Amino acid sequence: MPHNFENRIAAYTDRVNNGLDAALPQAGSKPQRLHEAMRYAVLNGGKRIRPLLVYAAGECLCVETRLLDAPAVAIELIHAFSLVHDDLPAMDDDDLRRGKPTVHIKYDEATAILAADALQPLAFSVLANVEGVPADVVIRLVRLITDACGSTGMTGGQSIDLAAEGARLTAEELEHMYALKTGALIHAAIVSACLLCDDLAADDAEALDCFGRSIGIAFQIKDDILDIEGETEVIGKPAGSDESLNKATYPALFGAESSRARCDELLAGALDGLSGFGDSALPLEWLARYIVERGQ
Amino acid sequence: MPHNFENRIAAYTDRVNNGLDAALPQAGSKPQRLHEAMRYAVLNGGKRIRPLLVYAAGECLCVETRLLDAPAVAIELIHAFSLVHDDLPAMDDDDLRRGKPTVHIKYDEATAILAADALQPLAFSVLANVEGVPADVVIRLVRLITDACGSTGMTGGQSIDLAAEGARLTAEELEHMYALKTGALIHAAIVSACLLCDDLAADDAEALDCFGRSIGIAFQIKDDILDIEGETEVIGKPAGSDESLNKATYPALFGAESSRARCDELLAGALDGLSGFGDSALPLEWLARYIVERGQ
Repeated sequence: MPHNFENRIAAYTDRVNNGLDAALPQAGSKPQRLHEAMRYAVLNGGKRIRPLLVYAAGECLCVETRLLDAPAVAIELIHAFSLVHDDLPAMDDDDLRRGKPTVHIKYDEATAILAADALQPLAFSVLANVEGVPADVVIRLVRLITDACGSTGMTGGQSIDLAAEGARLTAEELEHMYALKTGALIHAAIVSACLLCDDLAADDAEALDCFGRSIGIAFQIKDDILDIEGETEVIGKPAGSDESLNKATYPALFGAESSRARCDELLAGALDGLSGFGDSALPLEWLARYIVERGQ
Repeated sequence: MPHNFENRIAAYTDRVNNGLDAALPQAGSKPQRLHEAMRYAVLNGGKRIRPLLVYAAGECLCVETRLLDAPAVAIELIHAFSLVHDDLPAMDDDDLRRGKPTVHIKYDEATAILAADALQPLAFSVLANVEGVPADVVIRLVRLITDACGSTGMTGGQSIDLAAEGARLTAEELEHMYALKTGALIHAAIVSACLLCDDLAADDAEALDCFGRSIGIAFQIKDDILDIEGETEVIGKPAGSDESLNKATYPALFGAESSRARCDELLAGALDGLSGFGDSALPLEWLARYIVERGQ
């Protein structure tokens, strides 16, 4: 593996893209339209932040890379499913995602609903079919990811988000919503690597747990800042779409400056927690900085 | 357990209803609207055929009843999730289910999408949190049910069903679609009991596998017959809704008489396979007859 981080990140990105390609139904297999829509939903050039966090946290804990593939792929499949449903007319009603037509625009609404519905069990199937991981750890991974994407995790956060349109949330309420809708799966990415580490010290587990929580919230605040400031061609979806939906977001409620300050504060806290890991945490540190400093 | 089948079935129904109630988020817990919608979607008086098949197949194989609770609950949660999405405007656009407003009518479309999305991981969470089942069997149950509800199972069948509107399928194509959209989960109900049996003979496994496949297809043909012949107040959804959608169904393509004959043939084949089990298969036999002879 090259020492240069960008090369290393590129190698991990290739790795998860290959894993996703292999986990998805083959192109052309039946039912064809559904399988095409599933592949379109997943293999569309996403940044793969969550899988990269799995690999980087695993590197930090000296977990064998091949053991990280299943949670990396499973978590990205869950993320992809959630985006397809978020974009539906009854939800955020977005026509563009990553610069391309959303699944319900490219195919149709029913196909989009079903394609996402099929990505969820595929994620758990990938976990249940992993090789080389003890059965009790597989079960703990399934528990981790079901909790992260269920009604008190990501999907619960989506529900709170929809209910909060036009509402004046406190910072605490807003960050709770962010912790669920975005943070839960990012946190699960970090914790999945912890579950695969045989001899994890309690302090290290706690440090990575806190890192995952902070960086999850920072990710969503940064997304909101980009939605307000970005240009459509850079962020890949219509800029200002949150504002037009009257979404409760950090910049809308507390201003762009406070949002940037909060992001920086969360990043600093997250990085502090990595100090005990030495150089093995550098990829994780690189990703945390990328999450807060990215331009798209 | 009483010897009278109807009492026994009622006891199993109570058992799965209690299990579903306990597995679902508590009423009033946050996010409240989402959790209410999840409970509404599941605790609405369904016949619980799939869980009953789990218990009856388990009885046939002398599996401890308490071990059957998790797959019974998980499979019903998956079934409930699929009904909520099936009823959406972009899918079958049904306003009534079991005589009550469908979830998107009672709540709203976004809540219906999310409530169903959260029922899926809950199902796998129930499996991953089961007690008293060896870890490798838990993993096999997760594999069984992810396969049954994924893109080459139930969801794939739904996709084929939508694509087949107005099409003239052959009986073989139609039964393939039925085997996926309805049969896969019914088959999984039977096989889940098999996975929990320590010393299952290969012949018995094959007999129950065939039973599950036959009865799954028969169930869907009977549903279609009821849709044509039933009255709205009896079947709990608008009668003739398949016809108005120009759905490819057995009675629409081959007539009511052929449909009834095929149902009887499938039932006879299924019952034949149970002959080796003696009296322990009587509840399974009762359920198979009920599936084909029910009036709603």
